[in-house]
Amino acid sequence: MTTHQRKLHLGAILSGVGTTQNDWRHPDLPGDASVDIDWYIANARLAEAAKFDLVFIVDSPFITPDTAPHFLNRLEPLTLLSAVAVSTSKIGLAGTLTTSFWEPYNVARQFASLDLISKGRAAWNVVTTGLEGAAGNYGREAHFDHADRYRRAAEFLDVVKGLWDSYEDDAFPRDKAAGTFLDKAKQHRLDHKGEFFSVTGPLNIQRSRQGQPVIFQAGESEEGRAFGGAIAEGIYANAESFEQAREYYADVKARAATRGRNPDHVVILPGLIPVIAETDAEAQAIEEAQNGKLDLAKALVQLGRPLNYHDFGQYDLDAPFPDLGHLTLNSYKGGAERIIRTARTEGLTLRETAWRFAARPNPFVGSPETVADEIERWFLGGACDGFNYRVTNPAAFALFTDRVVPILQERGLFRTEYAGETLREHLGLPFPENRHAPAFEEAVAAE
Amino acid sequence: MTTHQRKLHLGAILSGVGTTQNDWRHPDLPGDASVDIDWYIANARLAEAAKFDLVFIVDSPFITPDTAPHFLNRLEPLTLLSAVAVSTSKIGLAGTLTTSFWEPYNVARQFASLDLISKGRAAWNVVTTGLEGAAGNYGREAHFDHADRYRRAAEFLDVVKGLWDSYEDDAFPRDKAAGTFLDKAKQHRLDHKGEFFSVTGPLNIQRSRQGQPVIFQAGESEEGRAFGGAIAEGIYANAESFEQAREYYADVKARAATRGRNPDHVVILPGLIPVIAETDAEAQAIEEAQNGKLDLAKALVQLGRPLNYHDFGQYDLDAPFPDLGHLTLNSYKGGAERIIRTARTEGLTLRETAWRFAARPNPFVGSPETVADEIERWFLGGACDGFNYRVTNPAAFALFTDRVVPILQERGLFRTEYAGETLREHLGLPFPENRHAPAFEEAVAAE
Repeated sequence: MTTHQRKLHLGAILSGVGTTQNDWRHPDLPGDASVDIDWYIANARLAEAAKFDLVFIVDSPFITPDTAPHFLNRLEPLTLLSAVAVSTSKIGLAGTLTTSFWEPYNVARQFASLDLISKGRAAWNVVTTGLEGAAGNYGREAHFDHADRYRRAAEFLDVVKGLWDSYEDDAFPRDKAAGTFLDKAKQHRLDHKGEFFSVTGPLNIQRSRQGQPVIFQAGESEEGRAFGGAIAEGIYANAESFEQAREYYADVKARAATRGRNPDHVVILPGLIPVIAETDAEAQAIEEAQNGKLDLAKALVQLGRPLNYHDFGQYDLDAPFPDLGHLTLNSYKGGAERIIRTARTEGLTLRETAWRFAARPNPFVGSPETVADEIERWFLGGACDGFNYRVTNPAAFALFTDRVVPILQERGLFRTEYAGETLREHLGLPFPENRHAPAFEEAVAAE
Repeated sequence: MTTHQRKLHLGAILSGVGTTQNDWRHPDLPGDASVDIDWYIANARLAEAAKFDLVFIVDSPFITPDTAPHFLNRLEPLTLLSAVAVSTSKIGLAGTLTTSFWEPYNVARQFASLDLISKGRAAWNVVTTGLEGAAGNYGREAHFDHADRYRRAAEFLDVVKGLWDSYEDDAFPRDKAAGTFLDKAKQHRLDHKGEFFSVTGPLNIQRSRQGQPVIFQAGESEEGRAFGGAIAEGIYANAESFEQAREYYADVKARAATRGRNPDHVVILPGLIPVIAETDAEAQAIEEAQNGKLDLAKALVQLGRPLNYHDFGQYDLDAPFPDLGHLTLNSYKGGAERIIRTARTEGLTLRETAWRFAARPNPFVGSPETVADEIERWFLGGACDGFNYRVTNPAAFALFTDRVVPILQERGLFRTEYAGETLREHLGLPFPENRHAPAFEEAVAAE
């Protein structure tokens, strides 16, 4: 074991009452956790005490009466994370925001502000919004076409990153005696004119001590993977099995390399919702009991969500999974493709498919040792750079931080103390030199 | 003196290094105050200790290299106020945001989130953006016409207030035993279709304990006053003299009454930047010394700002103030009109006009007693409901909170303790019943 050994990275997805059917009914979880900033702060502090790299806030801007509890009623990511920023000191803060329904100037400004407030710990999880109904909240008859969304996202991100470099890092002498606040030569306009956006700049805020917020992404479709390989510095991945995770990991790292990027600078974190008990048998029993409480009607709604809330109630439950060839898959395309592919490959009926996705196979069920073993296998086996743990009930999170994390630390796989101050330092990502600064040319040459 | 006596309301405008030429050069003020969340938190806590009603954050989304220091480089209001929210417990939190360059769904959501995070202390200062150059940061060749801006603002606010009522206050039974999280009948779509916006809703966040954020506004032009009388619950007013303030106060209160509103539910707060010293003579000397340090070139830039950064360098400084009849006054229209009117009425040259606005007449210069007397005169004389104090250098703010506030408290003009928990309670504003709730009809009838 050397000090240079590659380390796991851990995120904590704080999603209040949870994104599944029954998370919110857990007796220890406050029913209003999704709108209670104290819940978020308490859990962020627990994650920080356990030396996690970051907390992660998911998001989407559309609901119906049938939407799952957490989505129905929750705090907005930027305001939430600013409150968490001043209630913590080391942990990274990743917030989700869509490029489909915002102005780049406002997004650049709010994330830059979060980055300063947190003293260099902000990350933006760039999404294009899977739910087609969201268009109606933003004056559009229909959502952007899936491919357009990604082209728009790429240009949006270009604009935002350009705006973030509006001031060189030494632009403000603030010399009170001489009366020089700004070195005007170090303020830069952007003057971007593109397919979707035209933005003059400059942005009215300086860079933070990590240079720019970290860019996360979570795409699973062909377009999503291409975008991730091109621009992501962190990826929240979706993987049901070691094999799936390995395929995704190899593919996205290769795409990054093809773009001339260092694949180590794309940190891939699959979601993790372990079920932990003293013994493997107890953990398996808990998992089965949880699955036994699922409701078929809700499972059908949940199955339809990535397909623009497609109404599965119209089909025969016990016939083979229906032909959805008439749907355009413009919503959560990667997730929708996964459902259809799984149903076809495994030859499932609609009922079986609904159960299959309400109670997805979970590779992380067992004793603390078993779960740590599986984490190690994925990490060393080329399936991930770490995990994004989804926090719901407090007892389960405590089991993970108190029992699993120490095993990972003993094995030299996870930090026992933060080595740096910024999220870029936690994740081993380079400091982005300002594009207008003399050091920029050198930094590009060294990549 | 009775317990029902009308009380002064005080806001603290936290504007970092300050919006004038030389504020930032004060030896006690950190040069990076505008981007230092710790500066904002410290001053919000001082204002809260002095029992102020609220802190107030101004904003605008456009800069040039010649812009004054605070505007050049500052934190964004929503992220800033969320951080302040969890660092304070009583004081209100008012943030400025423009209706010209945002989506109503995003604005509704972020202010609702701030309102929950602060447990009912949020206010939105609704502006339409005076600076025409801002259009270029949002894909527009030119800014909206002044009248269009206000029509757009009115519809924008309608949408936001409608979205804020998406959930009735008892919409979430969160009954874990029965499995009922939401009472679906108490979630309401908006289905707004108007001239500028079409928004289906519902918003994915519940109301706070104050029902909805307080609506502030700061318009000075004819359109601005009409909008204020129609929708504002608080107004940040601009007044150079007691007489000006009285005229504005009477006019806006009358406009509110004409709209069928209770004039007491429009709280009018002129800006206040007192110069305080032990004696009147000392205070006058400080004021004169400050004015003596002003720079004419910067004063000319500042004079041009409300006129779309009009270049006054092109004119003879000692000729009468130039004819600007060719300008459309689409920027800060009220401010621009005031400059032109003042120069004409007082028969000033351009040089005199520049000095006149760089060193504006300040009625609040003197000993603590003198300043308290003038505050009392304005308050009891029908010129205001209180003041919005602009915080810059720490020593001056301490003189105000430690020396002037206690005099106002002794005279029974200002609270010695918060009586309520929410900003609406501090300002004496009614709780807005949800438009979909049975109690709404009764509340409307009682107004």
